Amino acid sequence: VVTEAGHAGDGFGAELVAALGDKVLHGDPDAMTAYVRDQCLIVPAGTPGWVVRARSQADVEVTLTLAERHGIRVVTRGAGTGLAGGANAEDGCVVLSLAMMSRILDIDPVARTARVEAGVLNGDLDAAAAAHGLAYLPDPGSRAISSIGGNIATNAGGMCCTKYGVTGDHVAELSVVLAGGRVLRTGSRTRKNVSGLDLTRLFVGSEGTLGVITEATVWLHPRPAAGSTVVAVFASVERAVAAVSALTLEVAPSVAEIMDSTTLAAVDQMSAMGISGVGAVLLLRCDGPAAVIEADRCEQIAAQFGATETFRTDDESEGAALMEARRLALPALERLGATLLDDVAVPVHRLPALIRGVQAISASRKVTVATFGHAADGNMHPTVVYDPADHQAAERARAAFEDILALAIDLGGVLSGEHGIGVLKRDRLSLQLDEVSLEVMASIKRSLDPLGSLNPGRAY
Amino acid sequence: VVTEAGHAGDGFGAELVAALGDKVLHGDPDAMTAYVRDQCLIVPAGTPGWVVRARSQADVEVTLTLAERHGIRVVTRGAGTGLAGGANAEDGCVVLSLAMMSRILDIDPVARTARVEAGVLNGDLDAAAAAHGLAYLPDPGSRAISSIGGNIATNAGGMCCTKYGVTGDHVAELSVVLAGGRVLRTGSRTRKNVSGLDLTRLFVGSEGTLGVITEATVWLHPRPAAGSTVVAVFASVERAVAAVSALTLEVAPSVAEIMDSTTLAAVDQMSAMGISGVGAVLLLRCDGPAAVIEADRCEQIAAQFGATETFRTDDESEGAALMEARRLALPALERLGATLLDDVAVPVHRLPALIRGVQAISASRKVTVATFGHAADGNMHPTVVYDPADHQAAERARAAFEDILALAIDLGGVLSGEHGIGVLKRDRLSLQLDEVSLEVMASIKRSLDPLGSLNPGRAY
Repeated sequence: VVTEAGHAGDGFGAELVAALGDKVLHGDPDAMTAYVRDQCLIVPAGTPGWVVRARSQADVEVTLTLAERHGIRVVTRGAGTGLAGGANAEDGCVVLSLAMMSRILDIDPVARTARVEAGVLNGDLDAAAAAHGLAYLPDPGSRAISSIGGNIATNAGGMCCTKYGVTGDHVAELSVVLAGGRVLRTGSRTRKNVSGLDLTRLFVGSEGTLGVITEATVWLHPRPAAGSTVVAVFASVERAVAAVSALTLEVAPSVAEIMDSTTLAAVDQMSAMGISGVGAVLLLRCDGPAAVIEADRCEQIAAQFGATETFRTDDESEGAALMEARRLALPALERLGATLLDDVAVPVHRLPALIRGVQAISASRKVTVATFGHAADGNMHPTVVYDPADHQAAERARAAFEDILALAIDLGGVLSGEHGIGVLKRDRLSLQLDEVSLEVMASIKRSLDPLGSLNPGRAY
Repeated sequence: VVTEAGHAGDGFGAELVAALGDKVLHGDPDAMTAYVRDQCLIVPAGTPGWVVRARSQADVEVTLTLAERHGIRVVTRGAGTGLAGGANAEDGCVVLSLAMMSRILDIDPVARTARVEAGVLNGDLDAAAAAHGLAYLPDPGSRAISSIGGNIATNAGGMCCTKYGVTGDHVAELSVVLAGGRVLRTGSRTRKNVSGLDLTRLFVGSEGTLGVITEATVWLHPRPAAGSTVVAVFASVERAVAAVSALTLEVAPSVAEIMDSTTLAAVDQMSAMGISGVGAVLLLRCDGPAAVIEADRCEQIAAQFGATETFRTDDESEGAALMEARRLALPALERLGATLLDDVAVPVHRLPALIRGVQAISASRKVTVATFGHAADGNMHPTVVYDPADHQAAERARAAFEDILALAIDLGGVLSGEHGIGVLKRDRLSLQLDEVSLEVMASIKRSLDPLGSLNPGRAY
């Protein structure tokens, strides 16, 4: 923001402060530090000119109105838990934080809907729903600390997607402030709606590039009753994936996680669970009225596909203890060094090829890579582990990360299953999307944000 | 197509015939009659200049390339089973029929996907999937005669949506020919994908206005085992809807249909099932591993909410016989006169208000209106019945139809749940969508079809 833009910026700042008062941070780099980047530490972040801590949709409208008038770019952020640099500031932009827009506006237990501001944390919404015997089902790993707005902007996944769908499947309506400050309302509170284009789904996963999601109406569901948990140990990834494919022909597990041998070794090192030295482990949960029947079948099918051991419990606290191994995967790997967490997805039957290919990349790049993730979705988190003090290791780690993206595409997969493209994978998008796709996305972007001021330089 | 446009049209026709030969019909009104309209008889259809019976995506590319070059408008049609005039020709347009693009290109039982041309009939795809023990689950009432392309273009619903979702939930990838002839490929064969905008969902339900869907990859699923069927008779609509709301807190029926007293009287008149003179009937089916447990609960909950009678069977052929009453609803009403079939949706808990409101409209407009539909989705088909020979009755019928749209909107509902807007409801869209929504839809349309040549004058 220099010369002409600098003058424009000065005017912007003055008008912004006049309109929003102490909701605006500026000129204090320390205070602004917390708003500069998300949890993806390997892509650069710039220095914003201003931070707006919006408290209402009206604050967002003011910010986008003034930003358009003065030609200032806007980077929107929620809780800042993103893993792709999607919330990273650029120099001279205004960072628009929705973290303080955290009101649950309405829970309607009869309609089974909740209307929330974008900054509401996923876990807080679920807790509020629980008070009515209902649940907000989407369960990204970050659910305790990530916000609904960000979940929607990245179409966040989680463990239960195989049975309950991704975030987008739970969104009924959105309020969006468009570039320039107009308010768009999308969707309906009906289960079916084919009146016009599905703008709700267009904004889901659009990573803040088309407008700023300020409010959402989401569907709530009956709270799943306590389920049954099965852990199955396999000599190979191939057998574990074959078991998942077979069992999903008969039952609908709510969780079907896989961990490869490298992940298991790290977890065992941290917790001494005694499940290392094997090829792969499946963690399965079944819930609903047929949970026990379904868990029985999971155990039988796992054995049929060569599980060397199975553990099974219908007790909720025992089940939670078994799931702990999966939740330890990333913390256990983070103890071993710096990590690059990836988020590729492939067709489920290509999972063995993905995990074997990742092992080969690990060997050739001389870095540890552990793979774990959502087996029934084919969405894996190969995680590169390296010594951050070793510059060459860091370069090899980044090369391994790039190799994994190319491998996923070779296997008919995608660059991101649930984290988004952000800045991190922006330059790799043409691996997956052809020129026409990219042009169509760009033309839709232009139609909604002609000046290109919303989340520039990211997503697509 | 006169004067300048006429000259352009002449050139278009010559080039079209040169490229596509006898796939082009022109100058023979009788041969073209079959391509002029869909099954919505109450909105006008024009006289096309040409009909292209495409046999491949390349034929579609040629047609759209020439149409753009010569400024000719294009109306796309599949099997012509639409209920909103979405396929009705306009004067001087080229009608592009995809009915002969009916090849199932690939069924992959391991990946559980099918790749099909747009003209494949829904029922034919499901039959092909069944040969692999799999199912294509979306089940619009027209499934035996409607095509996948049209199902996707309208995001068609059906009876099983409450458990298995609408058409859009089953689409993995699309091939779309854009205005001007470029080919866009959307989506992926992975269960999760947040790489760029969700163009697949943008085309689902877009009613042919953004491009011509030529191919789709859809998800197949394990074939649901034979289920259990419950019929519950209630003294009032209110009790029936309360029962549906309560039972969906515990179980996931694959079908939950409701018929009001007017519908039941018509069905009874046709088939003497002995279920007239009651307030409402629910038809419920449960499938999957917990079918029997779930059907037990459905029966118990229906009784708890005041069902005066319940019938229950776990036998598939008996179940089919019970479902017959629902399938007879529309044929039974059509025996009574001309019909105007509507397709509104409201939040489920507003269904009693919708059905009561429709009864009031029936009384005030002095036409019969019967309501039946998908109770767990809130998607109803109030059907106006009138004497087509009585001009005034036809006018009152149309007025009742309009009243029902306004009623649905008043109840927080939508103009169409699963049939689409087409030409039929085009002028009523502003009842549901505000100015900003309509402008955003128009701007997306312009970004993909700047000349406005695809399916002009319909959908949004």
